[in-house]
Amino acid sequence: MAHISLPEGVPGIRGPMMFRPETARPMSELAEILLCGPSPLTPGERELIAAYVSARNDCTYCQTIHGAIAACHLGGDEELVRAVKLNFEETSVSDKLKALLAIAGKVQQSGRNVAAEDIARARRSGATDFEIHDTVLIAAMFCMCNRYVDGLATRAPEDPEFYRQRAAKIAAEGYVSATVGQVAAAT
Amino acid sequence: MAHISLPEGVPGIRGPMMFRPETARPMSELAEILLCGPSPLTPGERELIAAYVSARNDCTYCQTIHGAIAACHLGGDEELVRAVKLNFEETSVSDKLKALLAIAGKVQQSGRNVAAEDIARARRSGATDFEIHDTVLIAAMFCMCNRYVDGLATRAPEDPEFYRQRAAKIAAEGYVSATVGQVAAAT
Repeated sequence: MAHISLPEGVPGIRGPMMFRPETARPMSELAEILLCGPSPLTPGERELIAAYVSARNDCTYCQTIHGAIAACHLGGDEELVRAVKLNFEETSVSDKLKALLAIAGKVQQSGRNVAAEDIARARRSGATDFEIHDTVLIAAMFCMCNRYVDGLATRAPEDPEFYRQRAAKIAAEGYVSATVGQVAAAT
Repeated sequence: MAHISLPEGVPGIRGPMMFRPETARPMSELAEILLCGPSPLTPGERELIAAYVSARNDCTYCQTIHGAIAACHLGGDEELVRAVKLNFEETSVSDKLKALLAIAGKVQQSGRNVAAEDIARARRSGATDFEIHDTVLIAAMFCMCNRYVDGLATRAPEDPEFYRQRAAKIAAEGYVSATVGQVAAAT
């Protein structure tokens, strides 16, 4: 049971977002810009960073939904998502994405853990300032979202099909429409 | 030196915010709603939560600026801010704020660490669902901001007077005006 009274039957971050729509809007807008907006990083790459950080924070809801969205963008390759969470260095993702995932993993522990050599590795693989900035902020944003979801003890459904269906909606519509739109409709 | 090319001479979070104004806007709006918007928690109480979490994340810039803003709201009581960061249980803050700071400290580690007894303590001291929600989200938001500021190795000025002056501006104008307004003026 959640730590506060949240709308019945609404899983994950959407419960607290319906509880407090004022804060839901800028949070959804931030997610939309970072994960769906114009970027040299593909939506699949950005969702892999989100799923990886959420897995390291042991957040069941976020790692499953963002893993499912990543898979949506990657032609349904759920196996790659699982492998990235487990050990991205051994996967087929690009050297640039590996370097960015390494930075994201440092940010998940502490911003102070990002070292000059992590940045140098990313630059050698072709990463730009913009890509490094967005990787740091995506990782940081999920350190917020994961704590929001788990700090209020929200419900994470067990059925993988729930996440696949929700992921398809978000991959198609983005975060503001799929989340704030729904909050507005329900309130 | 910062890990990416940021505007010269702009300290803390404002450098990356000027680098990426698209994400700066929703971040500032979220801070404005949570820290300055209508709430049963006073601005001073909310800034103490922000400073406490930032201190636990060892983020020099955020703990100093939000400590200074808290002091602004608390009649200049910098000693109380220092004491809260060190051991809030031994300070003169209310039992309710102590219970909320305890929740914020758990969120700083992991959302999963917030236990039913932490929530029960907060309720016994009179905390509402709204106050518990906002405490969790303020703590979570600073886990984002601290990582953003340090993950890009931004500059934290050493002179306490810098923070006092900046704090007075934010306490008077709020986050959107003091931050996004400045970003817009500079770009």
